[in-house]
Amino acid sequence: MPQTPIDPARLTADLVRCASVTPEEGGALQLLERVLSEAGFSCTRVDRNGIANLFARWGARGAARSFGFNGHTDVVPTGDASVWSVPPFGAVEKNGWLYGRGATDMKSGVAAFVAAAVDFVTATPPDGAVILTITGDEEGDAVDGTIAILDWMRAQGETMTACLVGEPTCPEHLGEMIKIGRRGSLSAWFTLTGVQGHSAYPHRARNPLPAMARLMDRLASHRLDEGTAHFDPSTLAVVTIDTGNPATNVIPAQCRATVNIRFNDAHDSAGLINWMQDELDCVAGEYGITGEMSVKVSGESFLTPPGPLSDLVARAVEAETGITPALSTTGGTSDARFVKDICPVVEFGLVGQTMHQVDERVEITQIHQLKAIYARILRDYFA
Amino acid sequence: MPQTPIDPARLTADLVRCASVTPEEGGALQLLERVLSEAGFSCTRVDRNGIANLFARWGARGAARSFGFNGHTDVVPTGDASVWSVPPFGAVEKNGWLYGRGATDMKSGVAAFVAAAVDFVTATPPDGAVILTITGDEEGDAVDGTIAILDWMRAQGETMTACLVGEPTCPEHLGEMIKIGRRGSLSAWFTLTGVQGHSAYPHRARNPLPAMARLMDRLASHRLDEGTAHFDPSTLAVVTIDTGNPATNVIPAQCRATVNIRFNDAHDSAGLINWMQDELDCVAGEYGITGEMSVKVSGESFLTPPGPLSDLVARAVEAETGITPALSTTGGTSDARFVKDICPVVEFGLVGQTMHQVDERVEITQIHQLKAIYARILRDYFA
Repeated sequence: MPQTPIDPARLTADLVRCASVTPEEGGALQLLERVLSEAGFSCTRVDRNGIANLFARWGARGAARSFGFNGHTDVVPTGDASVWSVPPFGAVEKNGWLYGRGATDMKSGVAAFVAAAVDFVTATPPDGAVILTITGDEEGDAVDGTIAILDWMRAQGETMTACLVGEPTCPEHLGEMIKIGRRGSLSAWFTLTGVQGHSAYPHRARNPLPAMARLMDRLASHRLDEGTAHFDPSTLAVVTIDTGNPATNVIPAQCRATVNIRFNDAHDSAGLINWMQDELDCVAGEYGITGEMSVKVSGESFLTPPGPLSDLVARAVEAETGITPALSTTGGTSDARFVKDICPVVEFGLVGQTMHQVDERVEITQIHQLKAIYARILRDYFA
Repeated sequence: MPQTPIDPARLTADLVRCASVTPEEGGALQLLERVLSEAGFSCTRVDRNGIANLFARWGARGAARSFGFNGHTDVVPTGDASVWSVPPFGAVEKNGWLYGRGATDMKSGVAAFVAAAVDFVTATPPDGAVILTITGDEEGDAVDGTIAILDWMRAQGETMTACLVGEPTCPEHLGEMIKIGRRGSLSAWFTLTGVQGHSAYPHRARNPLPAMARLMDRLASHRLDEGTAHFDPSTLAVVTIDTGNPATNVIPAQCRATVNIRFNDAHDSAGLINWMQDELDCVAGEYGITGEMSVKVSGESFLTPPGPLSDLVARAVEAETGITPALSTTGGTSDARFVKDICPVVEFGLVGQTMHQVDERVEITQIHQLKAIYARILRDYFA
């Protein structure tokens, strides 16, 4: 049953009016579930630990060609709403721009791929499946969001053979940049413990501070790599060293420090943790003190090497915008770090300049352009 | 006019009853001034900035032989007086011991040299002068105590040709140890300032922490010296490093650290300050950050090399106790660090085990022994 094409700008505005600040669902996924169900998508809410998530599939489960989109409807808080020139959830239009929290990051991206997917399957039903994975927990801890959907998909035998994450990726002009990978990120907390004593008699104490200085110097001055084919060099930042000893005549018993590593595809977190543990053991042994380390891995690095998927997206971008996109691995983390365990994944979306800011906004013509790009990607993928 | 010999134990008890917690005079110096004036000493109160000090001379100003004693009547606080087994200022005698704050450190020492000096000048008036410099500010900041007396002496043309500081010096048995020098002490506070930034983009920030780690490692691992003829090696203790940054995704702008140096006669504070400033400048330049250092010098190191004065004291100790004293430079600082600018100075006094403790106490027979040692030193010096 053919439908009127969906207006992605109107859908974006409707989504902006849902105050879906993480972890609130705010009506956003309910709205999308209605739209997609009407278009023949099989929809399942994959909620976990109070987080709302939506899985939608058109076509057969496990189809040989299953193109997926990933995105999120949750948004960051507005901050002081009185500083905005418009109500943050009002979806006000001014001079060709749509204003509101999530207008850029990333309700417009979700609206664009939902609109493109609905129109595509309605107009030219493909030989395969179109999968939409939309989470309400990307801006939060992200442990019950896309991960929950992927866990559920594995359990259900649901698959994707390629996936596009619709996050904003373009620095200034729509079409400039496709992300084909992201650095990994981890933090490590070190505690060195010696024996307290009097500053006048250091030989009777075991001062953890020279050991901490040596350890941090070793970690900070080690060149992790020279960069790889698609990545800048990995970086390690010492973010804090703390003791809290106010007395100059006391050698303290304990000192703490934290480092943060952003690492490329030359590393995985396990290798970096081993390296830090070795350095810690070495320094602790050298100074005769005790060293402890705890680590949190926010995400592994990933790369979808330039190939069929990035070519497909780049061709569609170029055809619709006239711009040849760069293939980049810059920036922080995104849910692509989870999707990459399932299938090849790239990211392409709008210009991200106002995301997380006061008066977040999107140029309305660009929402239509983005829908056109996504639609072309679907046509080409199933051609 | 010959007097009855002064009982140094009774004088100690009378002094203990004066609650002279720094900066309170408590009647202690007034008591000594009475005793000394009656014995023919010329007494002058050299008070400065609310601190009471006493200068007393028997004999002519500027005499070719002017033997001095130095000590203090101020005491550290009692702490919780209810924990004591006796009233802290009660001067209670039990089983041959005299209890009270200052019983060891160092009202007994002061009483012993006052008693020895009075008896000596009364019984055998010497060809020269006996000088007593007694301060009420040794346990405090010590800026208006012995320094004030020495400043006044210089202005007045008062001199000493040798001086003995009567602080407790013996670890376990009276007679074991003479101090012929002390290490110097200084503290340095470092502030390194860079540019704050995001942990993911260290090249856009200037992180002061790796620089601080490098600086502290350099300072802590530098061997200041191998020790000297009469001193153990100098030591440097890093006592704190602090940042206070709770966010793993933020590179902080600033970090602070403090070091404390105890240095022997291979150094003076100026040389050490220059060395640290050079290291700071070097590291700051290497890392492109700003470094600041502030320093407080608590005292220079000093040494009165073994010679006539230490021989004199050692012979007297051996004659009275049968023990050959070690010549040591161990321990913290004392007012000898100021006296050394005027004349050769050594330190000899009681066993210091209970000083600054609850139930501080002194064995009464040892006060008499100490008086005998001081008296012999005077006789031998003027012989």
